[in-house]
Amino acid sequence: MNVTVPHEQMIQTGARALLAAYTYVLDEGPLTEWPSFFTQPCLYRITTRQNEERNMPLSIMLCDNQAMLYDRVEAVEKANIFEPHYYRHVLSDSRLLRSSAGAIVMETSFICVRTMLDGRMCLFAAGKYVDEVVVEDDRWLFRAKTVVLDSSQVDTLIAKPL
Amino acid sequence: MNVTVPHEQMIQTGARALLAAYTYVLDEGPLTEWPSFFTQPCLYRITTRQNEERNMPLSIMLCDNQAMLYDRVEAVEKANIFEPHYYRHVLSDSRLLRSSAGAIVMETSFICVRTMLDGRMCLFAAGKYVDEVVVEDDRWLFRAKTVVLDSSQVDTLIAKPL
Amino acid sequence: MNVTVPHEQMIQTGARALLAAYTYVLDEGPLTEWPSFFTQPCLYRITTRQNEERNMPLSIMLCDNQAMLYDRVEAVEKANIFEPHYYRHVLSDSRLLRSSAGAIVMETSFICVRTMLDGRMCLFAAGKYVDEVVVEDDRWLFRAKTVVLDSSQVDTLIAKPL
Repeated sequence: MNVTVPHEQMIQTGARALLAAYTYVLDEGPLTEWPSFFTQPCLYRITTRQNEERNMPLSIMLCDNQAMLYDRVEAVEKANIFEPHYYRHVLSDSRLLRSSAGAIVMETSFICVRTMLDGRMCLFAAGKYVDEVVVEDDRWLFRAKTVVLDSSQVDTLIAKPL
Repeated sequence: MNVTVPHEQMIQTGARALLAAYTYVLDEGPLTEWPSFFTQPCLYRITTRQNEERNMPLSIMLCDNQAMLYDRVEAVEKANIFEPHYYRHVLSDSRLLRSSAGAIVMETSFICVRTMLDGRMCLFAAGKYVDEVVVEDDRWLFRAKTVVLDSSQVDTLIAKPL
Repeated sequence: MNVTVPHEQMIQTGARALLAAYTYVLDEGPLTEWPSFFTQPCLYRITTRQNEERNMPLSIMLCDNQAMLYDRVEAVEKANIFEPHYYRHVLSDSRLLRSSAGAIVMETSFICVRTMLDGRMCLFAAGKYVDEVVVEDDRWLFRAKTVVLDSSQVDTLIAKPL
């Protein structure tokens, strides 16, 4: 009845597949593929829920181009400051926030469990992704991704990206 | 081959979208929208798995009309007896239990993480939703929702609804 | 544009429904239905991520036919060596790894929460399922299921299958 509905649904399906693929790269590697999920330029931010609710623009981390993302990957792979660990993300259903021709913004609740090499396991992070997804050259990409953490105590600076 | 299949699938898709929207309202607010997910009258119960398996009708909480749901919202928002906190729900796939014309009953496993304002985070609840979903005036609504908690130690009385 | 796409999508939908049904049987019972999710012969393995990454064929548990699966069910139900407990699985999106005519291999991240009868609740396991799914006599079945645990400390030998 409405030609825009199938189009939007197609975008939502593609955006969700992008997000799922993104979390598998974080969890399974290789981390060097992480920047390829973003447009150039892009916006990748980690912030806290309390900052977002107060409309404070503070970010725990902010990258606005792919070079910064690659720097981050290199730091993680070479610095070895932190103890090696695995992530495991589990996603809940996405909620559509806004959509326009060729772009949608959606949010997705997630939980991330971290496991250290010696076997210790903990609930590392809970929060949501707010993703602006676009299609460029037939590829689904994040133009902007904000990781909103429910807790302000998550130590993300010396670890893998979320 | 069977005309009822598309109809059932449509209902399942709608029921799942309703459940996802419900959890986002619990996690992101505003909590005042919580009662609007239910029919009038309705049935909202929280119980434990052990009670359910023994067929004991005991409920930790029971509301059978929207006024009771609104009372609960008011208590949460005004009483301030409990420490402020956030929820984060993650849903697994739903399983269809029964369906009839215009109504389905499905169950959905979930995990809920709670984060206090100071950043402390814990696995708050695990269990399943058993939902009876109907369509009234083109809106998907819960006619009955039972929250079955795996643990009997979850303190739900002085907190936000699940 | 490609006739194989709908076919693959159908298989993926069926494979996912199989996996969801599988986790509900583990979480809700009856456990005696667990072997019926597999072909005969089959392969059911539990291993750790570190073993997999080192290409070590070590398994924490290995069953290669239905009789071994039924033995395991009987051990769980009769031995009573371990303390009674519930599982609650939450699945993230699946990722397709390989597909051929009538068979697909996919992986699916999961988290499992364990609750003891006295109410104690813990994050029991995180990891992924790697599933080879086939259709036999119009039924979706696991021809091979590997449970890859992120942690090497999960005690799976004296508990219910994952």
